[in-house]
Amino acid sequence: MSEKTMDVIVSHAKHRGFVFPGSEIYGGLANTWDYGPLGVELKNNVKKAWWKKFVQESPYNVGLDAAILMNPRTWEASGHIGNFNDPMIDCKNCKARHRADKLIENALEEKGMEIIVDGLPFSEMAKLIEEHNIACPDCGSHDFTDIRQFNLMFKTFQGVTESSTNEIFLRPETAQGIFVNFKNVQRTMRKKVPFGIAQVGKSFRNEITPGNFTFRTREFEQMELEFFCKPGEELEWFKYWKETANKWLLTLGMKEENLRLRDHSEDELSHYSNATSDFEYKFPFGWGELWGIASRTDYDLKQHMEYSTEDFTYHDAVTNEKYVPYCIEPSLGADRVTLAFLIDAYEEEQLEDGTSRTVMHLHPALAPFKAAILPLSKKLSEQAQEVFATLAADFNVDFDETGSIGKRYRRQDEIGTPFCITYDFDSVEDGKVTVRDRDTMEQSRVAISELTAFLREKTQF
Amino acid sequence: MSEKTMDVIVSHAKHRGFVFPGSEIYGGLANTWDYGPLGVELKNNVKKAWWKKFVQESPYNVGLDAAILMNPRTWEASGHIGNFNDPMIDCKNCKARHRADKLIENALEEKGMEIIVDGLPFSEMAKLIEEHNIACPDCGSHDFTDIRQFNLMFKTFQGVTESSTNEIFLRPETAQGIFVNFKNVQRTMRKKVPFGIAQVGKSFRNEITPGNFTFRTREFEQMELEFFCKPGEELEWFKYWKETANKWLLTLGMKEENLRLRDHSEDELSHYSNATSDFEYKFPFGWGELWGIASRTDYDLKQHMEYSTEDFTYHDAVTNEKYVPYCIEPSLGADRVTLAFLIDAYEEEQLEDGTSRTVMHLHPALAPFKAAILPLSKKLSEQAQEVFATLAADFNVDFDETGSIGKRYRRQDEIGTPFCITYDFDSVEDGKVTVRDRDTMEQSRVAISELTAFLREKTQF
Repeated sequence: MSEKTMDVIVSHAKHRGFVFPGSEIYGGLANTWDYGPLGVELKNNVKKAWWKKFVQESPYNVGLDAAILMNPRTWEASGHIGNFNDPMIDCKNCKARHRADKLIENALEEKGMEIIVDGLPFSEMAKLIEEHNIACPDCGSHDFTDIRQFNLMFKTFQGVTESSTNEIFLRPETAQGIFVNFKNVQRTMRKKVPFGIAQVGKSFRNEITPGNFTFRTREFEQMELEFFCKPGEELEWFKYWKETANKWLLTLGMKEENLRLRDHSEDELSHYSNATSDFEYKFPFGWGELWGIASRTDYDLKQHMEYSTEDFTYHDAVTNEKYVPYCIEPSLGADRVTLAFLIDAYEEEQLEDGTSRTVMHLHPALAPFKAAILPLSKKLSEQAQEVFATLAADFNVDFDETGSIGKRYRRQDEIGTPFCITYDFDSVEDGKVTVRDRDTMEQSRVAISELTAFLREKTQF
Repeated sequence: MSEKTMDVIVSHAKHRGFVFPGSEIYGGLANTWDYGPLGVELKNNVKKAWWKKFVQESPYNVGLDAAILMNPRTWEASGHIGNFNDPMIDCKNCKARHRADKLIENALEEKGMEIIVDGLPFSEMAKLIEEHNIACPDCGSHDFTDIRQFNLMFKTFQGVTESSTNEIFLRPETAQGIFVNFKNVQRTMRKKVPFGIAQVGKSFRNEITPGNFTFRTREFEQMELEFFCKPGEELEWFKYWKETANKWLLTLGMKEENLRLRDHSEDELSHYSNATSDFEYKFPFGWGELWGIASRTDYDLKQHMEYSTEDFTYHDAVTNEKYVPYCIEPSLGADRVTLAFLIDAYEEEQLEDGTSRTVMHLHPALAPFKAAILPLSKKLSEQAQEVFATLAADFNVDFDETGSIGKRYRRQDEIGTPFCITYDFDSVEDGKVTVRDRDTMEQSRVAISELTAFLREKTQF
């Protein structure tokens, strides 16, 4: 049994068709990744599962899909043009570029000191570098430039001239697409506060040091909810959405011991937030943020009211009160939580008969294939294909007729298929197939006519 | 009854929560659009319906989700850096910038001449401008600059310096993400030719003149399939995918009279293509390309073999033949086909009782809400909410308890909800509800316990 390291996960993901290095035939491109045939199914299932609980089944929430390219004044109002920066520092000797906070944190961690540098003034950071005589990790030199701001938004130009008037940005978060549409959504959907607007989509951040596989990438997908409520009721709703998030993760099979909830301390809170908590997952490289849930007051809507001519005041027709709603933001990275599910599900197991297997214990709702149809002999191929066609109308299923049944079981275990359905010579007569359970490895006979109902029940959550 | 113009469609889409102008509170951003709560459901249903037929039910195809940001050498190999240009011309007097081909086409159309300028050499275009004495449509001047190339790729910089070595592009098509992963997919999924790789995702083109609502936008979503087959069998597969595409559109209710298939003529074909056909839809502004299906030979794979060290030769283990597969590319715009479905479904109807209604006859599989739960009285709200909760586990459904039932029917007609489910005082006793059909407006009593099966059957396609 090998230890569950990131190397093991990355290799498994690559060789089993989950995640390939981006642009691999051209030597890649700085920590970009492509989801392979199984990865896209897994990630789509994660997104569907989120939409099911946070939009479809919610009596409060509706969806939205705003453009990635937005009017740049959006980013003035949101503060991204002014404040969305990382501290950057260069080594004068070897010209290597570093994130100053990470440089310090890593150097002090090696000395056994754990401190959070993120958010300190540049002068404090410079002092720490001097005090602890921190060297460039690439060349060992101590000769650094001053620390400077580096804006994390990707810049591009729309239209035919590269002038500043045509400068636009790839959105660094999906949240602002929701805020600017607050009124459009509330009005057209005749929504009453409290209600929420959910969005799934790509965002882009020009991270100085992306890394840890799909944990931190420059291009990533978010699943965000902005939930609007009456001022004074926000901490109740904050609690509600924290519980809903927790339940979602556990219902989909994430192990409780790999999850923790960390409340932000008073001095860690953003100036506009009166409560923030992060769900963290125990990745092989340590605890990492998974799902940030923030009570953001009326900061965002008020910022947009200041920068535009729009009035986001809500009029409660029943109580006749007027107010700008407060907002709770549960924000989850689709790539990151997909990675967490992938890691969580991966096991190398020693079996009773002395052999071992690699298996992904993914929840059936998340598994790329819900079942694999395995004809016992190629002579049964045609009949088994009929079973495939019946099930494929409702589920993503695999078909495999190569190698021994035992070998095919192992192959499906490795990609997390919860059920293997063997079509044998008896099936022709009795209309039944052998269904083998991935986790218990137990087998039972099930009528072909009942398979759809069987899978429907098993994939519920 | 008003004529079904683009204005009518855009207004309906905006006021009923389908599509809002992007960044509207900041005055918009050059033909960007945000999908509202109903639009995101409609578009997601279109994407799901495509994935169902082109991936899930296909014994040949698998999915992929490659990154938007790719190694720039990809675009050298694909020809986008060298050839992905529009002819640009400036008016020297008023500085307005035009696409030269469109400038000429529009000017000649006004004279009653219909010619295709796209693809002509610049010298020919310049000659046409002189011969026909074409003026700047903005100021009337005849003083133009020379025609120049304008590359349509959005450029940005990754990493912390804006040097040419950090220059990358937003992908202008999803196809290349598939080609570079040909071997990764074939190997990990143990695929045998013929097989296909499907992808849904955003692409970006810096169009000089975007327009016609969501028909042509700079940011758009593609649904592409690259289907690899043995050389010599490509025209058979070309036919197969044309038929599959046609069937998909018709099964989902697109009206046959609004569709036409246009085969590219010999001199219109790209140099690497031996057959190309476009499905065109009759938009209110005229026939427009919907779905391009091209037989691309081995051009794309061979280009990447030339620019990288990868060998895409396929070895057929049965016949022992070796070849670079040929490729069929059915390429569909998700926004464009969503727009076509929206237009196709929209009707203003004169009813027998002398009143009229606006209704969207969307196929139930595409409709944003599959049903709306309408309690006859607010006293029945709680029981009706139970029906909502039961159905919401499987379907996106609406709940509306405001206004008369007649008014609520009209509201649901306008957003295309196929079934209105009224919970009345009898329902408490007999466990049945009144189901009203959007298209026939007929009503029937259905047991609550049978509603899930009823909707499941109706949403099949």
